[in-house]
Amino acid sequence: MSTVERQAKIRMILVNTSHPGNIGGAARAMKNMGLTELYLVQPKEYPAPRAVWRAAGARDLLANARIVESVDEAIKGCGLVVGTSARERRIPWPLINPRECGMKIWQESEHHDIGLLFGREDRGLTNSELHKCHYHVHIPSNPEYSSLNLATAVQVLAYEIRMASLSDAEGVLPAMNDWDQPLATADELESFHEHLAETMEELKFYDPNNPKQLITRMRRLFNRTRMDKMEVSMLRGLLSATRRTRPK
Amino acid sequence: MSTVERQAKIRMILVNTSHPGNIGGAARAMKNMGLTELYLVQPKEYPAPRAVWRAAGARDLLANARIVESVDEAIKGCGLVVGTSARERRIPWPLINPRECGMKIWQESEHHDIGLLFGREDRGLTNSELHKCHYHVHIPSNPEYSSLNLATAVQVLAYEIRMASLSDAEGVLPAMNDWDQPLATADELESFHEHLAETMEELKFYDPNNPKQLITRMRRLFNRTRMDKMEVSMLRGLLSATRRTRPK
Repeated sequence: MSTVERQAKIRMILVNTSHPGNIGGAARAMKNMGLTELYLVQPKEYPAPRAVWRAAGARDLLANARIVESVDEAIKGCGLVVGTSARERRIPWPLINPRECGMKIWQESEHHDIGLLFGREDRGLTNSELHKCHYHVHIPSNPEYSSLNLATAVQVLAYEIRMASLSDAEGVLPAMNDWDQPLATADELESFHEHLAETMEELKFYDPNNPKQLITRMRRLFNRTRMDKMEVSMLRGLLSATRRTRPK
Repeated sequence: MSTVERQAKIRMILVNTSHPGNIGGAARAMKNMGLTELYLVQPKEYPAPRAVWRAAGARDLLANARIVESVDEAIKGCGLVVGTSARERRIPWPLINPRECGMKIWQESEHHDIGLLFGREDRGLTNSELHKCHYHVHIPSNPEYSSLNLATAVQVLAYEIRMASLSDAEGVLPAMNDWDQPLATADELESFHEHLAETMEELKFYDPNNPKQLITRMRRLFNRTRMDKMEVSMLRGLLSATRRTRPK
């Protein structure tokens, strides 16, 4: 697969962006680094002249941007989903730094589509959005002043993807191991989590009115595993078997 | 010498900047990455409200910026001078990439002051300015759209200096965050697998006389995940709930 084809499998997904200037800045940063696929989940003010102005020579990326209604729609079909996270979470998720993120995304771009999620300027991603991710990435900013501008966060991560693509071209990165099955996509994973939650509720193992951390921990467990399609259908088969045999 | 002292020896020098917004954006990017010393060589329009606005929480860097008349004045006393360069020059200079630049600057910050030069938005550094440098650094942007915004160029190079400072501090790159639970032991994992196999058999989901690859795949799935103790007991709780509710 060519470099351009791999770049086209990497979706930069801006969630609920408030300032259209940041959308333009993100588009410019992406094009500078050779990326093309911009997704906008419910942008607050868009289209907007300020986005076009800040995009400068990257207006074509804006013109081709996909505007979608939900994160689920944006990550549909993705085999790897990474979310940017500024804060420590109560339940820590597998956390990678931007360099590891660039290498991982570039390596996997040979195999499947990838979604990289960027949150709101003021509040980042919600917990439920973060829980859809396989990994979180944190840009190691100055703890005394850590609020990165959205476009510069896109810049740093796009830069690391580009650095990985260049070292890959030179044969430096080890290739990802061959797996015997294709990885499950984000939407398949989401359906599995719904199936699991319903089953746990029916078994009275999970009380939706007193969820504690059960759902979050299940999501963390099964997302970081990077399940393949067969594994997901195996587990869903097991969940269905559970429900078939439960007392009426 | 402390990290803060070393950071204070690294001068980010913006030469003849046209747009004050870029000065503010550069200040913000610097502070995000822990850098403090901003030098402005004959800025075109400064001070300016737009610079303050774009600097956001990095106004202190603007207030402390040194405004000087020449590049020579800005690099006075520096033991290492690096200039950003977009173009191939007729007479090639020692050229490093941003990663090498970050490592070199951080290493040498222990010994002497360092100047990193950023040129004009439209024309970069002049040949005579570039010839004052020990090295040139090139951000490997998309050849089809290589004009990086000034503030994002500052961001990328400041980020690489920070990554170098962190790997220096830890001996390696920032490690994965501490996990909130201890990992399950091999024997706990083994008991879980037995519990899972028994449950699958009772559910008639698994036929021990015709096992196919089910057990193997379940082992591969749950072993590669590196489960923690709480996850194992959560899953075992779920398996027990399944068995409690199955028909007699």
